[in-house]
Amino acid sequence: MPTAYVTAPTDEADTIAERLVEERLAACVNRFPITSTYRWEGEVHHDEEVVLLVKTSDDAYDALVDRLEELHPYDVPCIERFDEGHVLESFAAWRDESVAAESE
Amino acid sequence: MPTAYVTAPTDEADTIAERLVEERLAACVNRFPITSTYRWEGEVHHDEEVVLLVKTSDDAYDALVDRLEELHPYDVPCIERFDEGHVLESFAAWRDESVAAESE
Amino acid sequence: MPTAYVTAPTDEADTIAERLVEERLAACVNRFPITSTYRWEGEVHHDEEVVLLVKTSDDAYDALVDRLEELHPYDVPCIERFDEGHVLESFAAWRDESVAAESE
Repeated sequence: MPTAYVTAPTDEADTIAERLVEERLAACVNRFPITSTYRWEGEVHHDEEVVLLVKTSDDAYDALVDRLEELHPYDVPCIERFDEGHVLESFAAWRDESVAAESE
Repeated sequence: MPTAYVTAPTDEADTIAERLVEERLAACVNRFPITSTYRWEGEVHHDEEVVLLVKTSDDAYDALVDRLEELHPYDVPCIERFDEGHVLESFAAWRDESVAAESE
Repeated sequence: MPTAYVTAPTDEADTIAERLVEERLAACVNRFPITSTYRWEGEVHHDEEVVLLVKTSDDAYDALVDRLEELHPYDVPCIERFDEGHVLESFAAWRDESVAAESE
């Protein structure tokens, strides 16, 4: 099962999380504030952002990424996939039931 | 080596973390507050919770999950396994020494 | 592509993050405060620390770890590697461009 790791502007993270759950592309989204340090046009920047950990299913992952690209304000958003080695069975079942892959 | 990703109610996270370290099922637990968005009985909810990142060993992982299920107040807790591709040798040794798998 | 998971003292995390980006060993660093519970010399401790999620490239990972060991104040720092199963192509390209492996 995959978790998508996404960073987003603080004032847009709630909306993105809610849409993904409403549209059944995510079973749940865990989010928290971070400080990001990065280089842009030769300068080092420090911005306040939010990480969204988006819990979805294998079948729904591609549709989730497509939708994230539509919802996200950045041209080059951080969208990374981390796969769990194991998920407690009852929670894995809940995740699968909560997510309806686009292809279904 | 595995890290268990667990979400728990804010007022129970400290106790769970402490028990796991005391009982040598975890070498350490890193925890932080999150906002969770999820669907429950048809409604989208936003709750404040805590993520616990539980650093353990391969041998102790199953015993850790069993104990988490006993300690956790939810019927269907989020308990997910993420495996590191590499751990700095000295830290990996410390993790192994700090954890005594139930089976030993 | 790897993300390095590193814990550090709160008052040193900013400097470590900035150095890694300046020296092109990291494309970006996402950091956030945590509470760590661990056993040290027989006692269970709770410390406030910071997690740094260091986004780098495969080629630069070893040089990154070497530099982290130089910069980090602990003798046994937590430096763990997590590999993404997939990274959005545009973001992966930006990560690779932003990082210049020592070996280059």
